[in-house]
Amino acid sequence: MAGGELKLLGAWPSPFALRVKLALSFKGLSYEDIEEDLRNKSDLLVSSNPVHKKIPVLIHNGKPICESQIIVQYIDEAFVGTGPSLLPGDPYERAIARFWAAYVDDKLVASWMQTFRGKTDEEKAEGVKQTLAAVEHLEAAFKECSKGKPFFGGDNVGYLDVTLGGLVGWVHAGEKLYGFNPFDATRSPLLNAWVERFGELDAAKAVLPDTDRLVDFAKMRQAEAAAAASNN
Amino acid sequence: MAGGELKLLGAWPSPFALRVKLALSFKGLSYEDIEEDLRNKSDLLVSSNPVHKKIPVLIHNGKPICESQIIVQYIDEAFVGTGPSLLPGDPYERAIARFWAAYVDDKLVASWMQTFRGKTDEEKAEGVKQTLAAVEHLEAAFKECSKGKPFFGGDNVGYLDVTLGGLVGWVHAGEKLYGFNPFDATRSPLLNAWVERFGELDAAKAVLPDTDRLVDFAKMRQAEAAAAASNN
Repeated sequence: MAGGELKLLGAWPSPFALRVKLALSFKGLSYEDIEEDLRNKSDLLVSSNPVHKKIPVLIHNGKPICESQIIVQYIDEAFVGTGPSLLPGDPYERAIARFWAAYVDDKLVASWMQTFRGKTDEEKAEGVKQTLAAVEHLEAAFKECSKGKPFFGGDNVGYLDVTLGGLVGWVHAGEKLYGFNPFDATRSPLLNAWVERFGELDAAKAVLPDTDRLVDFAKMRQAEAAAAASNN
Repeated sequence: MAGGELKLLGAWPSPFALRVKLALSFKGLSYEDIEEDLRNKSDLLVSSNPVHKKIPVLIHNGKPICESQIIVQYIDEAFVGTGPSLLPGDPYERAIARFWAAYVDDKLVASWMQTFRGKTDEEKAEGVKQTLAAVEHLEAAFKECSKGKPFFGGDNVGYLDVTLGGLVGWVHAGEKLYGFNPFDATRSPLLNAWVERFGELDAAKAVLPDTDRLVDFAKMRQAEAAAAASNN
């Protein structure tokens, strides 16, 4: 099962595609990086993910795998012995890592998006409140999973590091854009230090986009949205 | 890791708790079945799942595991060699099973709930439409996963059978209550036959609640909701 041709259908600013790129980078796997235009999706994307028609999709020897957390688990299981293991070896620790990874998407990402995209100031404020509640839980999760070591995975980067790692570029960009860092040093000192530590790893630096490029991208999208709204 | 004491915090009508009971039943594992009163949650539930405070929670040798799909994967991984494997052995097939299991909760269950709980007739009709779209995808998934054999898992029940199996009692109860069966024989002949086949297995019969009991439960809840609404 290991080896063979890997293609990734992604979009460079996507935290979900970045999650997969981080997993591939930490495992030391090379792949063809195919950038999708999400406003004009390729036939390959649509035929590879006919259900959701979303990136990221990893294509391994012609067979597509969809949904970022499922892809990362696949990479870990299909390439056992290539690079470090991302999921913990112990079934209980694996269940805990899966629990918090699901929490990142269901609670943290969902409420953090609402801080930017809420339609009213009230919705945005509620997003901030929910984001900070999620971060409080994740700060405790870091303590539980890392057991005093530098990463969720312990001495080495693991599944949860990669899951949350896809967001690191947006932590910095969001702070520049809106002055809001969910992982600030006062409220969540462990996660704040983790963001810095993770971003300094060579395998992460090779993948994570530049903050200014993300800021420019977000500003461009905001300007487009404003122009579309004024045309209505 | 295998062996030891298993306790399940559940609620008998819950398709998510039933999913875990089915996994334990097919694996041939015995456990203490603790029925929770969801209107007055036990200290054990709240302390075992402090993040979501929801059932089901499986407690294995004092250590809690939360979220039904994560629990089923845990059962399979912690009790390797006890009973049949639920997840496929091949990493690609495992990724496909995880994809469809996530789809069941994110799309099928969410839209099916809307067919009962929608606030307006339009919302309910949209729920029916989305449910049928999800079933169409799942009918194709059954073909892909079963490869002409009786179950999603092939010759034997697997992860997806257990995931969807938690809903089987409600398929029959929903038909009695509302005359709507998402898996009807015309639209989804494969899933319709699967519902019958699955329900006839001894390990499923040992766990799945009686249809009339589910119908009575739903009617009682509806009566309570109507009484509460008329008091407002």
